[in-house]
Amino acid sequence: MSDPATVTPAEVRRLCRLNEFRQPTTASYSHGYVQANLIILPEKHAQDFRNLCLRNPVSCPLIGEMRPGDPKVPEHLAADCDIRTDLPRYNVCKDGKLVETKTDIIEEWKEDSVAFLIGCSYSFEAALSDKNLKPRHTELKRNVPMYRTSVPLMAAGVFSGRMIVSMRPYPTESLEAVREITRPYIRAHGEPVAWGTKGARTLGIEDPDGDHPDFGDPTEIREGEIPVYWGCGVTPQQVVIDSGIEGVVVSHAPGHMLVLDQLVKAVCTSE
Amino acid sequence: MSDPATVTPAEVRRLCRLNEFRQPTTASYSHGYVQANLIILPEKHAQDFRNLCLRNPVSCPLIGEMRPGDPKVPEHLAADCDIRTDLPRYNVCKDGKLVETKTDIIEEWKEDSVAFLIGCSYSFEAALSDKNLKPRHTELKRNVPMYRTSVPLMAAGVFSGRMIVSMRPYPTESLEAVREITRPYIRAHGEPVAWGTKGARTLGIEDPDGDHPDFGDPTEIREGEIPVYWGCGVTPQQVVIDSGIEGVVVSHAPGHMLVLDQLVKAVCTSE
Repeated sequence: MSDPATVTPAEVRRLCRLNEFRQPTTASYSHGYVQANLIILPEKHAQDFRNLCLRNPVSCPLIGEMRPGDPKVPEHLAADCDIRTDLPRYNVCKDGKLVETKTDIIEEWKEDSVAFLIGCSYSFEAALSDKNLKPRHTELKRNVPMYRTSVPLMAAGVFSGRMIVSMRPYPTESLEAVREITRPYIRAHGEPVAWGTKGARTLGIEDPDGDHPDFGDPTEIREGEIPVYWGCGVTPQQVVIDSGIEGVVVSHAPGHMLVLDQLVKAVCTSE
Repeated sequence: MSDPATVTPAEVRRLCRLNEFRQPTTASYSHGYVQANLIILPEKHAQDFRNLCLRNPVSCPLIGEMRPGDPKVPEHLAADCDIRTDLPRYNVCKDGKLVETKTDIIEEWKEDSVAFLIGCSYSFEAALSDKNLKPRHTELKRNVPMYRTSVPLMAAGVFSGRMIVSMRPYPTESLEAVREITRPYIRAHGEPVAWGTKGARTLGIEDPDGDHPDFGDPTEIREGEIPVYWGCGVTPQQVVIDSGIEGVVVSHAPGHMLVLDQLVKAVCTSE
């Protein structure tokens, strides 16, 4: 394959369908294009999940939704795209427990399956890197550290829970630039929700040093830097799993997302 | 005036303009029509306020927004409506402090004034009453009790703060009905965010008995009832005032709202 950054979204999806692409899409594939989180659940709970997204758009920025039983992604988001095969890797949960990781979900797809596409922080990380504010975990080639918080989500039917946030350290003097750069990415978690030790306290996080995240990898907070916290797409996944709804729930495997034909600027920003 | 419930929104607004209507609109005027909260602030902070609403739609459900310096409400929301005169009563804040309560704001309106209309819980209270679940404060002819919480809003530029919630007691066995009835009112705070003593703890409320609210009036929680908490439109007002932004900020006086020509069902629900 040529330079990952210039591979088209359609080519990534084609290779996924052939099972020839199994790595994380987040490793700089298709620069500038939207990568979306995926959640598939039974139609019975679709309205509650839609409301969860509408009521908690910072944690759950809804980009698109598909018709019950229809595995075809809306054409304007991704041409000729089958949600059952065109991601590199899927997590399959049954009755609230992760049971399998697979490269397609033909078997799991049902007549009442509804797929939701959710915005992802990868979209604003590229913007930060472009402005010489590369996220630390990217520099360290690790996963972003993520934390459970004490902040309740706005309940929606069967779904409720607490926010999960991602954390990226930045020098105090860069905070306003980091806020400004990420602010327009309203359908990709947008600007930070809190920062610094005071922010960590507000969120109920007991590890402001980045050493013991609840998910992802530890990071390094260097001299003069503060932790900066953003909404995180693991929140809706965790909420749906924790709700213990009956039946099959499928999500993308972490980092193995759906690459859309739309540019981040067109879908995720308010500009 | 004839039966308040059947007075048209246009008639309420006409009488406001003539200073012949100075009472709260919430006393059953124009049954079925949207009553909107109002916030007017300088254009400089309009984008941040818009983001505050988009990021916190349960506390700040945005119904409409006007062009900078234009006092005319969009025709589809209210015909021939001037935002400076057509509410019964306004609160005027300067540099973060309430300085005056007035029946028009012709003097306060500037070239850079931007008006925002926000959904209001009065919209779903009628639905509850229609189903024999009349809110207690309505029965007692008091103001709804409201509480400051420890739940942080999703920060947006100069605006940040904590959620304020309203509380209505209901019998435990009515909880699911109350949730279902209010759930569709997505642009009027929607379904409750928490309930019961556990919910009060999650929100950081130390008065689950309803005796000492932070705003509004005390209420009665009777045998077998639990407190039920909803998002509340006082939140954005308080956030804007607490932010201490320079210049004039105007809001409706509590209960003295703008009555729109649109039906609640058309504007505030997702049905």
